[in-house]
Amino acid sequence: MPDATLTRKILDAVDAGFDAQIRFTADLVASPSLRGQEAPAQDMMARAFRERGLSVDRWKIEVDDIRHLPGFSPVAISYDNAFNVVGTQRPRKGGGRSLILNGHIDVVPTGPLDMWTDPPFAPKVKGGWLYGRGGGDMKAGLVGNLFALDALARIGLAPAGEVYLQSVVEEECTGNGALACLQRGYRGDAALIPEPFGETLMSTQVGVIWFQVKVRGRPVHVMTAGSGANAIEACFPLVSALHALEHEWNERGHPAFAGHAHPINFVLAKIEGGDWTSSVPAWCTFDMRIGLFPGQDLMQARAEVEATIAKAAAKDPFLAKHPPEVVYHGFMAEGWVLPEDTEAQRTLAAAHQAVTGQPLQPFASTGTTDARFFGLYADTPALVYGPRAEFIHGFDERVELESVRRVTQATALFIADWCGVEER
Amino acid sequence: MPDATLTRKILDAVDAGFDAQIRFTADLVASPSLRGQEAPAQDMMARAFRERGLSVDRWKIEVDDIRHLPGFSPVAISYDNAFNVVGTQRPRKGGGRSLILNGHIDVVPTGPLDMWTDPPFAPKVKGGWLYGRGGGDMKAGLVGNLFALDALARIGLAPAGEVYLQSVVEEECTGNGALACLQRGYRGDAALIPEPFGETLMSTQVGVIWFQVKVRGRPVHVMTAGSGANAIEACFPLVSALHALEHEWNERGHPAFAGHAHPINFVLAKIEGGDWTSSVPAWCTFDMRIGLFPGQDLMQARAEVEATIAKAAAKDPFLAKHPPEVVYHGFMAEGWVLPEDTEAQRTLAAAHQAVTGQPLQPFASTGTTDARFFGLYADTPALVYGPRAEFIHGFDERVELESVRRVTQATALFIADWCGVEER
Repeated sequence: MPDATLTRKILDAVDAGFDAQIRFTADLVASPSLRGQEAPAQDMMARAFRERGLSVDRWKIEVDDIRHLPGFSPVAISYDNAFNVVGTQRPRKGGGRSLILNGHIDVVPTGPLDMWTDPPFAPKVKGGWLYGRGGGDMKAGLVGNLFALDALARIGLAPAGEVYLQSVVEEECTGNGALACLQRGYRGDAALIPEPFGETLMSTQVGVIWFQVKVRGRPVHVMTAGSGANAIEACFPLVSALHALEHEWNERGHPAFAGHAHPINFVLAKIEGGDWTSSVPAWCTFDMRIGLFPGQDLMQARAEVEATIAKAAAKDPFLAKHPPEVVYHGFMAEGWVLPEDTEAQRTLAAAHQAVTGQPLQPFASTGTTDARFFGLYADTPALVYGPRAEFIHGFDERVELESVRRVTQATALFIADWCGVEER
Repeated sequence: MPDATLTRKILDAVDAGFDAQIRFTADLVASPSLRGQEAPAQDMMARAFRERGLSVDRWKIEVDDIRHLPGFSPVAISYDNAFNVVGTQRPRKGGGRSLILNGHIDVVPTGPLDMWTDPPFAPKVKGGWLYGRGGGDMKAGLVGNLFALDALARIGLAPAGEVYLQSVVEEECTGNGALACLQRGYRGDAALIPEPFGETLMSTQVGVIWFQVKVRGRPVHVMTAGSGANAIEACFPLVSALHALEHEWNERGHPAFAGHAHPINFVLAKIEGGDWTSSVPAWCTFDMRIGLFPGQDLMQARAEVEATIAKAAAKDPFLAKHPPEVVYHGFMAEGWVLPEDTEAQRTLAAAHQAVTGQPLQPFASTGTTDARFFGLYADTPALVYGPRAEFIHGFDERVELESVRRVTQATALFIADWCGVEER
């Protein structure tokens, strides 16, 4: 750890830039970087990197470059506007360890606007919180990475190892943005991802699979509804059967989630079916997101899901002859466990303690993050450590400003300690 | 009834025009007169009326003209393209009874195109059937009305009373097209509507109400799914409760539907909910179409539906505090029973017998038709009698050509008998 004097200087340097940090975070939140629309926000990141003299690598993800790699998730949309941006600070002298500071630019949809107190892309600071879609998940963390580096610069220092500031797309649906960074050759001695997990260190994360179930029915005029096959109602028993599988998986348990009541969540997240209120619906498609334990084989999990659907469908006279189709349209993500007691996490724990006076607490995540790419496919210690946020993926998403300040300070200390510092 | 010679001449006259009739029907099927897009098909009808020297009344329906009338159904779409067309043939001498020949131009959506053998708006004749969306329901009947009148003209005759050829919109969702004809002052001594009910005479029809149920949830990231409230899954028990009400209504029964196993159908016809596969869905809306018996009060039926939904919602911890909203967006249609043994139906029965050699069979309809407007609100005997069709509201909808021929012949005989004839 930096000595007490340097530590104080670093923390003060974060404070000195904090107003500008929040302004930039708010500007970035105002850019609605929904899936497929991330490019303007990525341009903001590239501009900010360039202004600081980082070398900027901005490239469009090509599915053909990554589809053969482990960790690839199937893609159902165009990547025409899917740009990654990496800003690299290379040391003058060097000799220190390298570090990847990763964050994602993509945000999830807002849902019905009338359920927001303020418009989701009109960020507002109220009562010590920054409100807006994506503020917590995870633009505050993404911007914090940059301003942690700024803090060192403000006191005339630079990291003594390469620091890669990665702003990636597609975290919320596939992880293919982070995968594309690996494919492009970016490697570090450690990676830090400030996901908004309340200043804890993520110790493990579940795997996640997305799938759609497409059910067909036999449409008839509603006057003879009994002779038709209602594709919407035919979905209900399939959903029930999948919840039974969810229960079974939770029963199996996993040591990394010991004490967690319900780590595996199967969520019926979207549904759409039918065309006309006086016709028995001929089609219905529902989307499910399922969690799985670290170590669960993806192909085996898919087979269990498909068998569950097939078995439930076989009980329906119409579906028995017209089986539902299962389509994978996003996450195909393995679970992962952070190796225990690495030097990277000891270093982060010390930085956290220096800022907060508290020991760093572990957190077992029932969602996925891009950490799996570093951990599983690049043998890199991946530390997920970010500020406190609320209502991510919900309405009135918000991130706590003092928490953002503390995480930025801890990050700056971590950079200085992990990479070492040199004069600018 | 016309004597045997005249009867033969009329039947032959229908035969003489039948190829042209099918061509015109196919042309009309090719015009995709979906709700809100009926105008070009209505222009075809107006042109056909004008070519025959009928006086043509084409007008845009104004909701403000009809919203105060009994039988009005709430409207959720624009009527900017909702034109009715009426072609009137007025007798030279007169003295006969007047007649409304009514049919609707609107067709229901196709559903997924890949489930059709041939494109729905590319009509085809195969094996004695005309295929295409709306061929059966009910362009074959609508065109048959016109060609029945043509048949009389071909042998130098015209009806001795006013004949109103009505081509209306909105039958499939509100009935406001037929209602607008009443509002405009059109009246007849009888009405005939060739809905595709297989050469039967409709003896009764259920009432129909459309409604939407809008359910809200508490969205969270799926990683904490247990703390959210899934708006989609919250709909399932509401649907179950509504099916229990459906069962209760069927148990009550109605004499006009004696012997019918399941006259009342509650159909979950559309559903849409959720925005993102990794968010617990915050909203879900489902559409239901329900049937009700003749004599059931609409407001009472609505109250029962709303109470059923409220009671089921009260069992859900989240919905108990955020009750679903019920919106009426279409049919608000009473049931109706055809008065027995009127002269109009005796006249039609004789015409049917003359063409088919069979007695006219009654048919209790578990769907609604525009007949209710004539029967309930204008004291007019309304005869629903049309050709045999299959898969209406489904895929590969088709209408049987020989059945169309017979119905057109019976219609021509009925016109001649009901109105009487005069020389053109």
